[in-house]
Amino acid sequence: MFSQIKADVLKEIVPNGSERKEVTSITNKIVEHLTEKISREKINARVEVVGSIAKDTWISKDRDLDIFIVFDKSTPLEELKKKGLVLGKIELEGFTSETAYANHPYTINRFKEFKIDVVPCYDSIEIITAVDRTPHHTRFVKENIGDLRNDVRLLKQFMKGVGVYSSEQKIQGFAGYLCELLIIHYKSFENVLNSAANWEYGEFIDIKKKGSKGDFKDPLIVIDPVDSKRNVASALSLDRLSEFIHYSRLFLESPSVEYFKKKKRPFVKRFPESEVYVIIFQGELLDDIIYPQLRKSAKYMSTILEKNDFKPLSYGLFKKEGYSGIVFEVENYSLSPVVKHFGPKVFDRTNYDSFVSKYKENFIEGDRVYTLRPRQFSSPLVVFLNVLNEKEGIGKNMKSMSFKILKDDRAMSFLRSEELDIYI
Amino acid sequence: MFSQIKADVLKEIVPNGSERKEVTSITNKIVEHLTEKISREKINARVEVVGSIAKDTWISKDRDLDIFIVFDKSTPLEELKKKGLVLGKIELEGFTSETAYANHPYTINRFKEFKIDVVPCYDSIEIITAVDRTPHHTRFVKENIGDLRNDVRLLKQFMKGVGVYSSEQKIQGFAGYLCELLIIHYKSFENVLNSAANWEYGEFIDIKKKGSKGDFKDPLIVIDPVDSKRNVASALSLDRLSEFIHYSRLFLESPSVEYFKKKKRPFVKRFPESEVYVIIFQGELLDDIIYPQLRKSAKYMSTILEKNDFKPLSYGLFKKEGYSGIVFEVENYSLSPVVKHFGPKVFDRTNYDSFVSKYKENFIEGDRVYTLRPRQFSSPLVVFLNVLNEKEGIGKNMKSMSFKILKDDRAMSFLRSEELDIYI
Repeated sequence: MFSQIKADVLKEIVPNGSERKEVTSITNKIVEHLTEKISREKINARVEVVGSIAKDTWISKDRDLDIFIVFDKSTPLEELKKKGLVLGKIELEGFTSETAYANHPYTINRFKEFKIDVVPCYDSIEIITAVDRTPHHTRFVKENIGDLRNDVRLLKQFMKGVGVYSSEQKIQGFAGYLCELLIIHYKSFENVLNSAANWEYGEFIDIKKKGSKGDFKDPLIVIDPVDSKRNVASALSLDRLSEFIHYSRLFLESPSVEYFKKKKRPFVKRFPESEVYVIIFQGELLDDIIYPQLRKSAKYMSTILEKNDFKPLSYGLFKKEGYSGIVFEVENYSLSPVVKHFGPKVFDRTNYDSFVSKYKENFIEGDRVYTLRPRQFSSPLVVFLNVLNEKEGIGKNMKSMSFKILKDDRAMSFLRSEELDIYI
Repeated sequence: MFSQIKADVLKEIVPNGSERKEVTSITNKIVEHLTEKISREKINARVEVVGSIAKDTWISKDRDLDIFIVFDKSTPLEELKKKGLVLGKIELEGFTSETAYANHPYTINRFKEFKIDVVPCYDSIEIITAVDRTPHHTRFVKENIGDLRNDVRLLKQFMKGVGVYSSEQKIQGFAGYLCELLIIHYKSFENVLNSAANWEYGEFIDIKKKGSKGDFKDPLIVIDPVDSKRNVASALSLDRLSEFIHYSRLFLESPSVEYFKKKKRPFVKRFPESEVYVIIFQGELLDDIIYPQLRKSAKYMSTILEKNDFKPLSYGLFKKEGYSGIVFEVENYSLSPVVKHFGPKVFDRTNYDSFVSKYKENFIEGDRVYTLRPRQFSSPLVVFLNVLNEKEGIGKNMKSMSFKILKDDRAMSFLRSEELDIYI
């Protein structure tokens, strides 16, 4: 049954001969074109194909090509950035291109369904820019993956299916390179799942045995074989790691192809009696900029809700062209208009004095003084409005965005009509 | 102003000449009668007047006489008990008597407004029965109180006024002897209040400097001058101690005779929106037996309410002939029918497995698994009924008592019609 499932999934995800031919042909054409440009411009650099296509671990229909222009170490950073952008534009029939900024500027080219990133970096094992390691990663995987490429594909597809694949900020899951290292270390897809099911907090994986566990505090530590000071899993969130462990166990207990099917993540209202709020922010920012801010804001709002006796069930993040936002599901409480507000111990004279002089009517319970005061926030809506107006605890760029809040029926019909993908 | 208040209060509480004459005359008559009985029965014992009348620290209109029959140490306990009861009955015109049991049997005699306890004890500084210290206490106070008797009266009346006087179980406050020691130590009523306002947790008072603070963990430690191994304040509850500190501060800040006026403690519903529940138990027990059980039960119920997301504001205890009970004021919440129920961490494999197999639908938050389940108890009433039916956490004698629960309007009209005194 297990091997039948694997076979069924592999049929879908391993690129076939004609797909390979198409990808190889495009790749070669681009490398040739860029090499020629380098030579024409007399630049001290070379072209390297990196990423899952170079490693032959890509999943059928993925059309993301990563091409690096590897500059000599002696090139000044400003020159690398400038020339990187000049070179990055693929000037061939049918290609379009735009400039993008991550850690440093690079070029995104598009051709048919292909998306081709051309990224400048240094030819150095000592890291100068954040992407200098990438060619080394590609080389390490190519040299060590042996015949385990389809196991990598299975693992990536499983992770996509359960929603933990990709190191993008909106997911904070497992990067492709991390998947490849797990397969190289554990030797098969099954072994990775079996091991993950038994991972402990702070699990330590060190293929080349050159790292030191004590250097890291992350819940999963996978030492980078090309830089033993770096944890490849450092950007993986505890939630995604825990979900991966959780779904590994469920899958092993009762395997099914369903786990490999990537589903759209719509918002699911889990209880008929709960309240749903959608906070929509107008304006657009890059995914990797806005998602961390949305997540930070949602966490903060969740804390403030709890402090005020509301019980958030969950929150989700979304983004579309022109707007982004947060959705909350909250237990439907009707709160008392009064709260018992405990002050300091009577033995803590200074604080006692200021409490007693602040509140008119005081009572004693145990050795603490308390008062009864009206509740500050009568509903989650009032909490959200207060947080958004105070502009504390919310993402930097969000502070200046205009917003609106929808509740229950209006929130649900907005979510239905927009068909948003929700990230947690 | 302070001395005017004291003068006004003392006018009310210091017994006048004719009152003293009447009390002395009755006391002498009883002592004479009992001495004669002892002599007639050829018993190796003597009569001693103890308590506030003997010490001349009683408050006008108090009519509680404490007479001890002090037996020789050689008397067997059984004989002391038997002869104590025989002697205890005051056989004089107009007296009635009944047998009572505290630590050991004694006799309560009544004559007009007088209540005369006749208690047998041993003539020993080594304690054989729990009351053997009492004559020593009386003697110590008489020898050391000097001209501070009215300061004792002021302190006792202040404590009565704010509800912290008496070591009875229903109050768990300051005993008369404790008041006298505080006055002897601090030298005046004002000094006691001023000092109490600044007491720290574990305040240590040792008049004869023979005790050791390390022997005790109580919030107030007052070493018994006649037994340095004993803390006179050991039965004082943290609540009553804290209230005394609290009211001392309030009084010193703004003195008023109102603090000396003992008020009936009716139930006060503090917020119009709160819910009130009265649980009534049928059957009668001695105050000192039933109050600790009511308090224990109320505390337990309060904890269970909180565990189930209800917010008790306060509880009170009451007792009348034939029944006793607990009153609760609870914040009026309308609770969500669903709760987020957190399970173990995914890394805690054993507990994770049993959680996941127990609940159908599970989710991950951080590194913990959780489910959403229906709330067990929909209202405080259901919590009370559950506790009372499970018979866990409630007083031993209360388990077999029949009960009924009244809510809101019915509870309030019951409390109004019965005019109960409420103890916390």
